[in-house]
Amino acid sequence: MKTAAGPIAVIDSGLGGLTVADALRKALPAEDLIYFGDTAHLPYGNKSPATVAGFVRQIIQFLSPMKPKHVVIACNTATALCLPTMVAEFPEISVSGVIEPGARAAVVAAGAKPVPTIGIIATEATVRSKAYGRAILQRRSMAQVLLRATPLLVPMIEEGRSSDDPVVDLALRQYLQGMISRKLDVLVLGCTHYPLVKKAIARVMGNKVRLIDSAEQCAQDVALRLRRKHLLREVNVNASGEVGSFQSFVTDDPDRFATLAARFLRMKIRPPVLVEPRDLYILAAPAPWKVSA
Amino acid sequence: MKTAAGPIAVIDSGLGGLTVADALRKALPAEDLIYFGDTAHLPYGNKSPATVAGFVRQIIQFLSPMKPKHVVIACNTATALCLPTMVAEFPEISVSGVIEPGARAAVVAAGAKPVPTIGIIATEATVRSKAYGRAILQRRSMAQVLLRATPLLVPMIEEGRSSDDPVVDLALRQYLQGMISRKLDVLVLGCTHYPLVKKAIARVMGNKVRLIDSAEQCAQDVALRLRRKHLLREVNVNASGEVGSFQSFVTDDPDRFATLAARFLRMKIRPPVLVEPRDLYILAAPAPWKVSA
Repeated sequence: MKTAAGPIAVIDSGLGGLTVADALRKALPAEDLIYFGDTAHLPYGNKSPATVAGFVRQIIQFLSPMKPKHVVIACNTATALCLPTMVAEFPEISVSGVIEPGARAAVVAAGAKPVPTIGIIATEATVRSKAYGRAILQRRSMAQVLLRATPLLVPMIEEGRSSDDPVVDLALRQYLQGMISRKLDVLVLGCTHYPLVKKAIARVMGNKVRLIDSAEQCAQDVALRLRRKHLLREVNVNASGEVGSFQSFVTDDPDRFATLAARFLRMKIRPPVLVEPRDLYILAAPAPWKVSA
Repeated sequence: MKTAAGPIAVIDSGLGGLTVADALRKALPAEDLIYFGDTAHLPYGNKSPATVAGFVRQIIQFLSPMKPKHVVIACNTATALCLPTMVAEFPEISVSGVIEPGARAAVVAAGAKPVPTIGIIATEATVRSKAYGRAILQRRSMAQVLLRATPLLVPMIEEGRSSDDPVVDLALRQYLQGMISRKLDVLVLGCTHYPLVKKAIARVMGNKVRLIDSAEQCAQDVALRLRRKHLLREVNVNASGEVGSFQSFVTDDPDRFATLAARFLRMKIRPPVLVEPRDLYILAAPAPWKVSA
């Protein structure tokens, strides 16, 4: 039985999902958040569906005893490669992803135009999955959908580069060249890291292209889902400024995570709890010792 | 009992170690090679010593039944973070790494100069470990050692970018600026991926700086170790051109590996055998069902 008291769980390969957590904190300040960053296995963006599903399954199994009222897969790659699998495997848990909300917002942003041109930049695995194309064409079957993998953006952002960096600018000009010449109506930032270089993307694309931040859209979608089910907390930020808690877990190096997280969350956090990869595997394994006597 | 008949095992986080395998194939064409690329867990370069040691331990345990006459950790990060641990944990297996040979070659290349200036470019984790500095200072205690993490080079190379790419050129000019102004004698390419953009590094550094290819040096070191122990195969490439076998294993997406491997090995290979991450964990776990009755 899900109650309003449970936390919202946000899961990601590493840091990118913090942009979703940040948007959730702003939209729903009274909610308790749990964040799981799978930093031992990151990135997911160049890995196969089976491998990524294996990682995500373990994380949901790990979080399940904390009774989350909702689990959001705040990673475009993981959503693209395994959201339907996870929804099917965990019927007792409410699970959503980051692609449907982004696709929906892209179609809305395209307005009444019957044949809009919508671009998506994402990781190699997200592009290969074609999940964005499907989600957009379901809503606007005549849309022209252009996909481009931009695999250097995540490592650039994790290295600390921002919109002012000339290497970011040059790489974006290379990646987006084809999209600029096709005169896009809308460009979806199809990876939760990308909002951190949104300024550079806007500069390169010009001001006629609407940019859709998939992290922002995802947070709004979670809020809507919980509101509809009457699972939002009654209490709101009280007079003393008390807000929901934020607890995080990682599979590697909590200190490194805490340092990098400050840039994504625009606030300092305590170092997260370390969950060793091997403990996740053992938890998830259908091992003989778990068979009840 | 090690015999000349066993294979040489080359292990890496992914593709980079193939530059070592390539150099070994050239130096010792009669030897059988086993390659293990831990592609589900790559990259190692931004992960912690405990996590990387956990991955490498599993791989050595997996390879051990194949009776390798030597295991070479063909990854600078893994060597920097856990070679001594692996040597201690597997006394029955002969294990070496890629840093000592590179450091040795750097000191030789610096010639008789009492205070040479030696630069090393590597991953974030290799730089943090200070392993190269220690290895160089043991041999030339007055050397000036400059370290620089160059975290974008691996994703750039894995994306297929080469020395002619303007993004590679610009990133290298940023990373190497400090080293150019310090007038290096020698620069060590402290990651087995980097030989693939050696031309660009040489262009940026100028022709007065000697470049040390850690992959090449590592292969020569393995050949020397086996020769000294009389473990090299007697047979050599025979008249029909028959050479040692090449068998590879990966933890994710064999087809993607085979495609990318062609660039590193300068030859096509069959898709490797897939070893799922979960099977590695189960193999390595001190599980109850392994306790003998």
